[in-house]
Amino acid sequence: MESEKDLKILRHSAAHLLAHAVIELFPKTKLTIGPATEEGFFYDFLPEKNFKEEDLPKIEAKMHEISQRNLKIEHKEISKDEARKIFKDNPFKMELIHEIPGETVGLSTQGNFYDLCRGGHVKYTNDIKYFKLFSISGAYWKANKEGTPLQRINGTAFYSEKELIDYEKRKEDLLRYDHRKVGKELDLFSFHDEGPGFPFFHPKGKVVLNLLIEYMRKLQQELRYKEISTPIILSDELWRQSGHYKHYKENMYFTKIDNKKYAIRPMNCPGSILIYKNKPKSYKELPLRLSEFGLVHRHELSGVLHGLLRVRSFTIDDAHIYCTINQVENEIFNIIKYINIALNRFGFDKISIKLSTRPQKAMGSIKIWNQAIDLLKKSLDKSNIKYDIAEGEGAFYGPKIEFKVQDSMGRVWQLSTIQIDFFLPKNFELSYINSKGEKETPIIIHQAIYGSLERFFAILLEHHKGNLPIFIAPVQVKILTITDDQKEYAIKTFNELKSNQIRIEIDETSDPISGKIKNALNEKIPLMIIIGKKEVENNNLTIRYLDGKQETLTIENVIKKFQNIN
Amino acid sequence: MESEKDLKILRHSAAHLLAHAVIELFPKTKLTIGPATEEGFFYDFLPEKNFKEEDLPKIEAKMHEISQRNLKIEHKEISKDEARKIFKDNPFKMELIHEIPGETVGLSTQGNFYDLCRGGHVKYTNDIKYFKLFSISGAYWKANKEGTPLQRINGTAFYSEKELIDYEKRKEDLLRYDHRKVGKELDLFSFHDEGPGFPFFHPKGKVVLNLLIEYMRKLQQELRYKEISTPIILSDELWRQSGHYKHYKENMYFTKIDNKKYAIRPMNCPGSILIYKNKPKSYKELPLRLSEFGLVHRHELSGVLHGLLRVRSFTIDDAHIYCTINQVENEIFNIIKYINIALNRFGFDKISIKLSTRPQKAMGSIKIWNQAIDLLKKSLDKSNIKYDIAEGEGAFYGPKIEFKVQDSMGRVWQLSTIQIDFFLPKNFELSYINSKGEKETPIIIHQAIYGSLERFFAILLEHHKGNLPIFIAPVQVKILTITDDQKEYAIKTFNELKSNQIRIEIDETSDPISGKIKNALNEKIPLMIIIGKKEVENNNLTIRYLDGKQETLTIENVIKKFQNIN
Repeated sequence: MESEKDLKILRHSAAHLLAHAVIELFPKTKLTIGPATEEGFFYDFLPEKNFKEEDLPKIEAKMHEISQRNLKIEHKEISKDEARKIFKDNPFKMELIHEIPGETVGLSTQGNFYDLCRGGHVKYTNDIKYFKLFSISGAYWKANKEGTPLQRINGTAFYSEKELIDYEKRKEDLLRYDHRKVGKELDLFSFHDEGPGFPFFHPKGKVVLNLLIEYMRKLQQELRYKEISTPIILSDELWRQSGHYKHYKENMYFTKIDNKKYAIRPMNCPGSILIYKNKPKSYKELPLRLSEFGLVHRHELSGVLHGLLRVRSFTIDDAHIYCTINQVENEIFNIIKYINIALNRFGFDKISIKLSTRPQKAMGSIKIWNQAIDLLKKSLDKSNIKYDIAEGEGAFYGPKIEFKVQDSMGRVWQLSTIQIDFFLPKNFELSYINSKGEKETPIIIHQAIYGSLERFFAILLEHHKGNLPIFIAPVQVKILTITDDQKEYAIKTFNELKSNQIRIEIDETSDPISGKIKNALNEKIPLMIIIGKKEVENNNLTIRYLDGKQETLTIENVIKKFQNIN
Repeated sequence: MESEKDLKILRHSAAHLLAHAVIELFPKTKLTIGPATEEGFFYDFLPEKNFKEEDLPKIEAKMHEISQRNLKIEHKEISKDEARKIFKDNPFKMELIHEIPGETVGLSTQGNFYDLCRGGHVKYTNDIKYFKLFSISGAYWKANKEGTPLQRINGTAFYSEKELIDYEKRKEDLLRYDHRKVGKELDLFSFHDEGPGFPFFHPKGKVVLNLLIEYMRKLQQELRYKEISTPIILSDELWRQSGHYKHYKENMYFTKIDNKKYAIRPMNCPGSILIYKNKPKSYKELPLRLSEFGLVHRHELSGVLHGLLRVRSFTIDDAHIYCTINQVENEIFNIIKYINIALNRFGFDKISIKLSTRPQKAMGSIKIWNQAIDLLKKSLDKSNIKYDIAEGEGAFYGPKIEFKVQDSMGRVWQLSTIQIDFFLPKNFELSYINSKGEKETPIIIHQAIYGSLERFFAILLEHHKGNLPIFIAPVQVKILTITDDQKEYAIKTFNELKSNQIRIEIDETSDPISGKIKNALNEKIPLMIIIGKKEVENNNLTIRYLDGKQETLTIENVIKKFQNIN
């Protein structure tokens, strides 16, 4: 596989090839810029007459034609005076020439096509063979909404046909397995105009949410967390004291009670803190680990709402650990361990870790920040885990560790977070009595493994392409009878499995078995139990897996199979 | 036991005795009225100088003295003219004489004491022997805040000493087992000024809440309910459509999003309805039973907030059953069955049922109301359950069945409700396609067993006097070692029981065993495991019950004991 840098060279060259084709087809078009991107490349044009999607195949064909001409791609440095002569009719290029520092600029040429360019190309146009244009979108000169409106043609390029095909397949998968589409097909959730950005969970979606909570509750119990629940509406003053009002007001919703201002919580910390403060604490009670499946509301612009991935209300598997400075390292070590257990359980094995340090807009001294960052580094080192440092990407109230996972379609998602907080304990004057009888200020560790349960659900759906792992599938198994003669045996089987906490359904239609199998596959149910005459006679069950493999087992062995899964 | 009417006669006579004693001790006091009440009696006075709590024993002693004089209590009708002469110095009595219809009024006398009175007394003052004064409170003439401020002396009276002692004991219990007090002692929940009326659940309180939810979820699964979850903020228009805005606005909280008005939900119905409407429905899908543990917010005046019994936010074990008219009877029959199962499980065996009919302020025609009431009656009759009819006490949108329980301290609480609703389905234009392919409107049955989980929790705590039944106790068992030598064995036992889902703690103090037992009793933990030298040697455990009884068992048998409980 080519290195990332080489791919960028290829794609930037493809952008030139695109511009070359456009100029040959539409000579009056004005060129602006054409960089490589993460996913491919684009070129922004000022066309004489707007391009339409129908133009793309024609442009792509012209690109192939120029590629086959196998023109040599050359690059040279020319004086700005010379460049100004060449580009005198193109105000965009003239502006760029003015802005480039130094006395010379780069000029790239292939045949009679030329472009202002920093350089970095393949050698011949025929080196660019595997490319695809996929869309036209609006853009502005220098991405400035006040600037000239342009048209952007988007595409991608690879060094091999296989890579291009894989990429197109992935693009298709992204559409096919979009969680919004799958969620609708499987009747998991919906959105309604009456509550934009607020998800409605249907019965099967709610089963998954409840299973996510149940699984996390078990992990939290192993970590000796104690679950609490606190109100979702709390006084304005509290949010001023916590600093959220100052830093987060634009994303909060407010209400009035008895003519006093209250906020609908965007975070769960202040509620947890009020419980901590409810009684004086001794060092013997620390670390005190309070967890909450806390519903929060945060405003998002309506334009960026995106299924369950970007909502205005969601539940966080939140935890706040109140501890001494000496306990931080061990607490974080344990959390890291459990984050890995959880992410692996849900099928994420490509995990990367980022340690984010002090941002520009931050509370507290640099000294305190450095102390916190050192503790996080120590815990990571002790866990024997590789991590990157992201300078300046911490939250305003403390440094954090973020866990990212790569999903089955190559995308990277930020999930779990651990955050040290020296500031809220001071703001809220938290204290405990140490072993010498003196008052000290505890540290808070904020921590979430799923983060937003709703978002995690969406990522899980897309990662597994709708085929949720059996331990979290809303329906784990469906009974299909060959004919209605097996109905009685099917109901007996249903009741026995159901009483063993297996999530089961019966197909009660009169469809032929092939139709029943097709429906179960569409419903993405991990297992089918097929019952025909033979199974009734032999008092056993035939299991059919997603891949079509079958196996005949006694009912006891089917139950055992599930006990191993759950 | 005396009938209720006789008790009222006794208590009204005791009020006269009180007034008699007050007049002898404080002759310049002006008398007003002195009725019997549910709990006892009171008399409202206009004193020359305000009475103090310290005066009560003196007044009570004087009452006993007058009682022992054994004065004959006489009643006669006199003309209003005569009455006006007798009471000319008392403006309150003069006002009453003016208001009483007819030409005569009643006069009651005992010795040289007399009072304006309708009649109904015991025969001699010595018939009033077992009474108690308990407080002085403020009152207004005719309960009108603009009227003359008076002082009310409260007391009670019974026919036997035993009844009086029992009553005083119950009054003490009410104070001692007030859930607010118990909740604080057992560290279950708290309230904070930052969210008045919004409960904060501490770890042990949250365990109970989660167990309540888990238990109900199991019952709901047996009833084939499907759990959903819907947003807690929904648009203003929706609440106008549902009728809540018109009938309930004063109790709702509002917010703004993108300059549009939204309400924080006071009820869960509209969210459920939006899920019903999400897809067209066929008669084959009915009855569709959607349940939700839905958090609602309802305004209450700050003066009436009362621990968990009266809050501003709570969770309802809500369910909405969408069905045809023919399905109503059977659905309600099943719900009634499960309500009885649940209430019995939590130790309520004194259950009474009320069917509430059309109130003054109601939606819909009388014909539709009568149809609904007939269906409810049929289901109740089929269940073979006695019920009372409360005319005019239904909700504005339909008739309902309410379940009341009597608690261990004699108080009656309204808990479960079942409500038929013909109106919301029409308001929201709900429909299903019947077997003939025609559109029809379903009926909604609203149903809740706990009602408010928070309120149910409070009632449960008071009913069981803090000793929650073992299946719902936050800590089921505590291990107490005689000396530190048994620590290792205690930890082994702890781990084994914990891995069997038993909620367990170890007393890690160095207190003597008597102190450890005392602490466990104070914490109201249903079972203790006592481990001494003998238990370690014999590899068994000694169980100590709340009543002090002990029993020595193997660890396996202890686990079995718990499996039978849960």
